[in-house]
Amino acid sequence: MVRRTDFDSGLNQLRELLIKMGTRMDEALQEAVESLKTADLAKAEEVIRRDGELNVLEEEILELGSQLIITQQPVAKDLRRIIVAFKISSDLERMGDLARDIAKVTVRLDGEAVVKPLVDIPQMASIASSMISESIRSYMDENTDLAYKMAKDDDEVDELYGSMLRELYALLIDQPEAAPQMMLLQMVGRYIERIADHATNIGENVVFLVTGRRPDLNS
Amino acid sequence: MVRRTDFDSGLNQLRELLIKMGTRMDEALQEAVESLKTADLAKAEEVIRRDGELNVLEEEILELGSQLIITQQPVAKDLRRIIVAFKISSDLERMGDLARDIAKVTVRLDGEAVVKPLVDIPQMASIASSMISESIRSYMDENTDLAYKMAKDDDEVDELYGSMLRELYALLIDQPEAAPQMMLLQMVGRYIERIADHATNIGENVVFLVTGRRPDLNS
Repeated sequence: MVRRTDFDSGLNQLRELLIKMGTRMDEALQEAVESLKTADLAKAEEVIRRDGELNVLEEEILELGSQLIITQQPVAKDLRRIIVAFKISSDLERMGDLARDIAKVTVRLDGEAVVKPLVDIPQMASIASSMISESIRSYMDENTDLAYKMAKDDDEVDELYGSMLRELYALLIDQPEAAPQMMLLQMVGRYIERIADHATNIGENVVFLVTGRRPDLNS
Repeated sequence: MVRRTDFDSGLNQLRELLIKMGTRMDEALQEAVESLKTADLAKAEEVIRRDGELNVLEEEILELGSQLIITQQPVAKDLRRIIVAFKISSDLERMGDLARDIAKVTVRLDGEAVVKPLVDIPQMASIASSMISESIRSYMDENTDLAYKMAKDDDEVDELYGSMLRELYALLIDQPEAAPQMMLLQMVGRYIERIADHATNIGENVVFLVTGRRPDLNS
């Protein structure tokens, strides 16, 4: 029933949109963290302003995927390829919201010097960033090994977040006046941790694509 | 092309599964918070053990929805009804993971008395709980007003979480030895706040169902 060429070319377009979304999301994360490190308000504003691009891409994916379902009537794995593209685009859109939330913290700090060297946040962001590209690659290549690897990366981000929290709590006892800023930094840690969770979720969906079964890697 | 009766009866089954999932998720949240309040390890273990039920329901929704797409070839809003059911089931499954994570905190506290009265956490959970039923109802009734109301409830949960954090930070200065427990309580607040975010996300998807456009209520 499915005309292979039309379906394949549609699916390739869908994949292009996902790559575009993943690349944009990754840039947003890196720019948001950079804006925080360098107290660069203009860069933060740029991240906030461009968040809408991810929403537009998600809509394009919903539209193109729906068209493909309607015109090509894919079944089994072909249908899952589209359903999973929908799910991934949801996750990427949410991840973009979180990158924007990090940029908002830069704006709230308004140039104020940070009380501790920003080491763990960029480190967490760098793992999260590689998870973003891995999640897209795992979809493109239908590679479940990468999906399982991401669950491990996610544990690493969680651990870094835990040790960052402990450090913040220790600092707080010496400098209680810095509590408001520490709350902001702690929020940034949390946002990155959630970005990593979403990437893991993408991995789970790739396992569903390949196997037809939905694992639970976030346990 | 769509045989209305077959499609409608399939869609009703899909809705039943979503209601079942929402009800189970809501129970899990309430039981997890109750286990925390009463240091009830057995109840916490039960929440953890039953998490798999939500994964099974998500799979059933994916299967039934895919079957409906394949056999009934729905278009436009009918197709969106199914795509949105997929998206909602993803959110509910993730919300279930978070309820399980709350129960894990009960287990980690292992009967230890909490350093502060648990007031804000149950209050946040009660708003989140009503958001869960509202999110399912907004899908059933295709009610976008409810979706926008949820975005407001979500702000309320965020505010409660913020004030809880401030209280924990203040307590910490007096009782630094309680830091590990406070971190656990703070995590619970975060989990509930994320559950509320997912409910808001469901609202966004209902707006997409009704209008064909994806709003961004999490800004």
